[in-house]
Amino acid sequence: MIKIALLGCGRIGQMHAANVIAHPGASLAMVFDSHTPSAQAIGNACSVPVATSADDVFASKEVDAVLIASATETHADYIEQAVAAEKPALCEKPIDLSLERVNKCAAAVSSSSVPVQLGFNRRFDPGHRAAREAMLAGEIGQLHQVIITSRDPELPPRSYLETAGGLLRDMTIHDFDLARFMLDDEPTEVFAVAGALIDPVLGAELNEVDTAMIILRTADGKQCHINNSRTAVYGYDQRIELLGTTGMLQSDNRKPHEVKRYTSNTTETSAPYQYFFIERYQEAFMAEISAFVDCIENGKTPEVGFEDGRRALILAEAAYLSIAENRLVSVAELMA
Amino acid sequence: MIKIALLGCGRIGQMHAANVIAHPGASLAMVFDSHTPSAQAIGNACSVPVATSADDVFASKEVDAVLIASATETHADYIEQAVAAEKPALCEKPIDLSLERVNKCAAAVSSSSVPVQLGFNRRFDPGHRAAREAMLAGEIGQLHQVIITSRDPELPPRSYLETAGGLLRDMTIHDFDLARFMLDDEPTEVFAVAGALIDPVLGAELNEVDTAMIILRTADGKQCHINNSRTAVYGYDQRIELLGTTGMLQSDNRKPHEVKRYTSNTTETSAPYQYFFIERYQEAFMAEISAFVDCIENGKTPEVGFEDGRRALILAEAAYLSIAENRLVSVAELMA
Amino acid sequence: MIKIALLGCGRIGQMHAANVIAHPGASLAMVFDSHTPSAQAIGNACSVPVATSADDVFASKEVDAVLIASATETHADYIEQAVAAEKPALCEKPIDLSLERVNKCAAAVSSSSVPVQLGFNRRFDPGHRAAREAMLAGEIGQLHQVIITSRDPELPPRSYLETAGGLLRDMTIHDFDLARFMLDDEPTEVFAVAGALIDPVLGAELNEVDTAMIILRTADGKQCHINNSRTAVYGYDQRIELLGTTGMLQSDNRKPHEVKRYTSNTTETSAPYQYFFIERYQEAFMAEISAFVDCIENGKTPEVGFEDGRRALILAEAAYLSIAENRLVSVAELMA
Amino acid sequence: MIKIALLGCGRIGQMHAANVIAHPGASLAMVFDSHTPSAQAIGNACSVPVATSADDVFASKEVDAVLIASATETHADYIEQAVAAEKPALCEKPIDLSLERVNKCAAAVSSSSVPVQLGFNRRFDPGHRAAREAMLAGEIGQLHQVIITSRDPELPPRSYLETAGGLLRDMTIHDFDLARFMLDDEPTEVFAVAGALIDPVLGAELNEVDTAMIILRTADGKQCHINNSRTAVYGYDQRIELLGTTGMLQSDNRKPHEVKRYTSNTTETSAPYQYFFIERYQEAFMAEISAFVDCIENGKTPEVGFEDGRRALILAEAAYLSIAENRLVSVAELMA
Repeated sequence: MIKIALLGCGRIGQMHAANVIAHPGASLAMVFDSHTPSAQAIGNACSVPVATSADDVFASKEVDAVLIASATETHADYIEQAVAAEKPALCEKPIDLSLERVNKCAAAVSSSSVPVQLGFNRRFDPGHRAAREAMLAGEIGQLHQVIITSRDPELPPRSYLETAGGLLRDMTIHDFDLARFMLDDEPTEVFAVAGALIDPVLGAELNEVDTAMIILRTADGKQCHINNSRTAVYGYDQRIELLGTTGMLQSDNRKPHEVKRYTSNTTETSAPYQYFFIERYQEAFMAEISAFVDCIENGKTPEVGFEDGRRALILAEAAYLSIAENRLVSVAELMA
Repeated sequence: MIKIALLGCGRIGQMHAANVIAHPGASLAMVFDSHTPSAQAIGNACSVPVATSADDVFASKEVDAVLIASATETHADYIEQAVAAEKPALCEKPIDLSLERVNKCAAAVSSSSVPVQLGFNRRFDPGHRAAREAMLAGEIGQLHQVIITSRDPELPPRSYLETAGGLLRDMTIHDFDLARFMLDDEPTEVFAVAGALIDPVLGAELNEVDTAMIILRTADGKQCHINNSRTAVYGYDQRIELLGTTGMLQSDNRKPHEVKRYTSNTTETSAPYQYFFIERYQEAFMAEISAFVDCIENGKTPEVGFEDGRRALILAEAAYLSIAENRLVSVAELMA
Repeated sequence: MIKIALLGCGRIGQMHAANVIAHPGASLAMVFDSHTPSAQAIGNACSVPVATSADDVFASKEVDAVLIASATETHADYIEQAVAAEKPALCEKPIDLSLERVNKCAAAVSSSSVPVQLGFNRRFDPGHRAAREAMLAGEIGQLHQVIITSRDPELPPRSYLETAGGLLRDMTIHDFDLARFMLDDEPTEVFAVAGALIDPVLGAELNEVDTAMIILRTADGKQCHINNSRTAVYGYDQRIELLGTTGMLQSDNRKPHEVKRYTSNTTETSAPYQYFFIERYQEAFMAEISAFVDCIENGKTPEVGFEDGRRALILAEAAYLSIAENRLVSVAELMA
Repeated sequence: MIKIALLGCGRIGQMHAANVIAHPGASLAMVFDSHTPSAQAIGNACSVPVATSADDVFASKEVDAVLIASATETHADYIEQAVAAEKPALCEKPIDLSLERVNKCAAAVSSSSVPVQLGFNRRFDPGHRAAREAMLAGEIGQLHQVIITSRDPELPPRSYLETAGGLLRDMTIHDFDLARFMLDDEPTEVFAVAGALIDPVLGAELNEVDTAMIILRTADGKQCHINNSRTAVYGYDQRIELLGTTGMLQSDNRKPHEVKRYTSNTTETSAPYQYFFIERYQEAFMAEISAFVDCIENGKTPEVGFEDGRRALILAEAAYLSIAENRLVSVAELMA
């Protein structure tokens, strides 16, 4: 049993706590949050100790590994502390909103053999994974196009948007990672358009966008399209399509059940899609814990690691540059 | 070009007239209806002669073949006249409501080589036909179960019901034929239940039912279920399912287009199914004409002939006997 | 936390043990199996005590309630012991293969207020449940027809079939219960046909059938069809359809993910359905535990109780009588 | 009956000839093709006169209107002749491969009241049309994103590609028109990437591409994505998706029938999509004729006219400029 400490006890931290407890190969060793009542809530509910500081967590012999689900600005520090303490870390995305800070952190991570896994949960979705595996197995021949549809059910609260770092670093970053996962290759060029179509007033006040379209291209010409919206009233919309020379693969949305309704005006009506990431990616989040436990127990390299987090952020930065300059941006410009 | 005369100019006659005219291998030679204005309406619209009697039709040298779409009670007489006049006939179902009359007509038909095709249009539906062909080709191994769902969009008018001959002879007769087509075998036993659930008052007045469930079985044990209703508000519901040892086949409903709607309460909502048989079986009705023309031109035996009409009626009679006596009825009882 | 003891540590017992452990409102208090190694396997894996006899389980103060997943012939005895010991019981179906034994047990259960819940897990499936709720809410008007498709993925081993009690008591019993659940009414008449189509040799040796079609009818004429097969190679096939005067509802099969494949010969190909009941009804089995815990904690009557188990068995007996006598059987005949 | 002359008797001309003949409000008056045997083939098959020159067609009193389905380089000349002869014209796309030539032709067309309809058949597809109407009726609130998937079943022969004018002028031009139709607005900015991924050798030799992704944006920020491929082995892939503030609409592909296959490895397998435009857009091509006849008979302005053809070509030119310069191109640059 891997004893995992949880850093960050907000909504996603609560979900991770429940998953760690339910996981047959892991136990929840302790929790910490700079907002003490949040930590105590989980501590009480799950009968686990509440640490008085993050330092205590990293120093504890009762802790084999850490799960970092705290505010984004703490991620890089915690990763560095975890590496220093030789405690494997599973860290929520993004690593940081600053590519400079990420690059600095990368130096610490790469000079160590301590596993650092990034929380790109979608890679563990059974559907997305099966699609990728079928593609890698040659089912569709040579891959030519990837289409990623990624739309949140509703605009998050203003308070969230104020610190989230912008649509492309906060939300699209998952899609940049999925693009790399599905292309099985590095995008070398990025083009993006974006606008505040859902809430133009809020968009203007926060200098934020809520609707975007992006095109990525790899060195050998494979094309990838991402479309994003912060409001899909019919439920969290998460689809992937892979076109190849001998076939196509789609990983489609998941409904809470398979009831279809028929009336005098309509046929085959299904329920709305699962509301949001906690519902849709429930199996993926649990599989992510399994993969983390597997890394630790069997000395494996994480399937999705720090460099994946850094690459996704670079694509977000390239997309922002594309928006600013209305042009196709070479990823190499950002790697310099 | 086969010159076809139309006997019977009601709703289904009008449809057949349009199909004959549009068919590249057939032309509409003349039309007749005992209700003269109906015949004149088609005659005028299509610029074809209106016969003054059915006898004139059968006597005409301008007529190669007849399409019988008149009232049911005229079918057997017209078939006998067609055979006597050596004019191939395509006759709408049922042959007659009386099995005795059908048996008498059978004698005339079987002693002649004039092709008589029965209007079991569903056998020509591209989906149903593809399902049967896949089954015959061994795609699902040994066939074990057939499920036929057959529901009309709405209760016909009282006037129609008064002369239609009863649900099982009027509507289910198509399903009895489809059962034989899909089983590729003869049902030897029949069990049925039926009730007037949609309109109990009308049902009591007319001694008619509107909702039924039937089980058929072949000599080697293959099972077939038919369910019928006179009211499917979501559109004409016509589905077939074939279960075999190595797979399953379904022929599902057809929509007017493939638009799907998504709202805050619903996903994947499609349009209602095609309203009724004229819309749903449009291709089938045309293919039926093609098969008829092919019989005549190439001296072929009709794919679906008089005996098929007789067998379907026997199954209907067996089902009525089952309802009367609450027991499994052997088809042999009706064949005596 | 309700402390639950598990009686019966076979395959389904193992699944229940895992669910009880994972359930936030329940804990696994102890386990027992007359085959001691099976009990020890769960005991060791889950770190729970292994009882040396069923009597010890019923006598233990560490046990609040029992989950009976042992061989069918022990169910009625264990239920009686549970009632005597005032320990609420969740018992797998069927109660017993003998209606006489069930009726005797019913006397003990009905004279007590100890909750006895029957393991008709399918009632807790999110899809089936949502369909029923929509029907009860009036979405489809008056209910007229229910179609239940229920096919196992493959023929169980001969050893299982030798003691299972026959297709209709072992497998269809779930469908009889679902029929009552979906009709929201009692079937009063039963007709059935069945055969050994998949394995005629085995069928003849064991006097067992593997393929069946059944029609049920309620006093007010509602019709229900069940079709069963022991072999659906495409996966466990569990569908329900409800036809009413103003609409239709379907609860369809569930796939492991929503990947669709497209090739030069095929489109929209999905993965096989979830293999069998443990996969398909995973959520239902957990919800069943929740309902049981809720009964105990809040003094509720079980949603699905002993009488439901007895009624389903009566329908199975009526179906066997129908098969023997080739006739529609009145359920009242079995209630005498 | 509108008497229509056909100019151009290749594959698409043959289809139009059949549709004109089958149309209840039109007749085929005569045919012409500079390749005389092609004209004679239709003339003989359909018993219509073969004109000896295009001039004869335009001069004939037997001709009410012309359908231009000849080689692209003749379109603009024929349109100008039709306008001069006061014969309404339905012209296949594109008007011309040269925007300069199109602009010159526009002057002639706009100074006349003779109806000129462009052959953007997809606007008449029942599904695409129903989606647009639902959007215009407010079903999805404010439109934000349009996704157009448009893939041909296979690479055309080299001879076709040599004169077709390039992927974006030949194939994508339909999608540019559909984008305008679905956005119900003018795109003002265009970005495109394209490559020869299917046949790089041919692509290099012909300086042609076969795979493309495009983003369009309107003045008010609505976003549209088009993806194109010359090879979709699973059949002609023609999908449209509209995302709005209160819902989503999709117009999906059409299959030849609704048969689904289930095996031990697969479920819900459908037939390949309809092979190509003649099959998929059959209803649309006929509706296009109806709209043309309606214009002529009732003095209506064509629903899709010359300016729509010009606008689509401008978008294609803008896309080529974007590809050349790797930047977002303003449509205004091309309008100067």
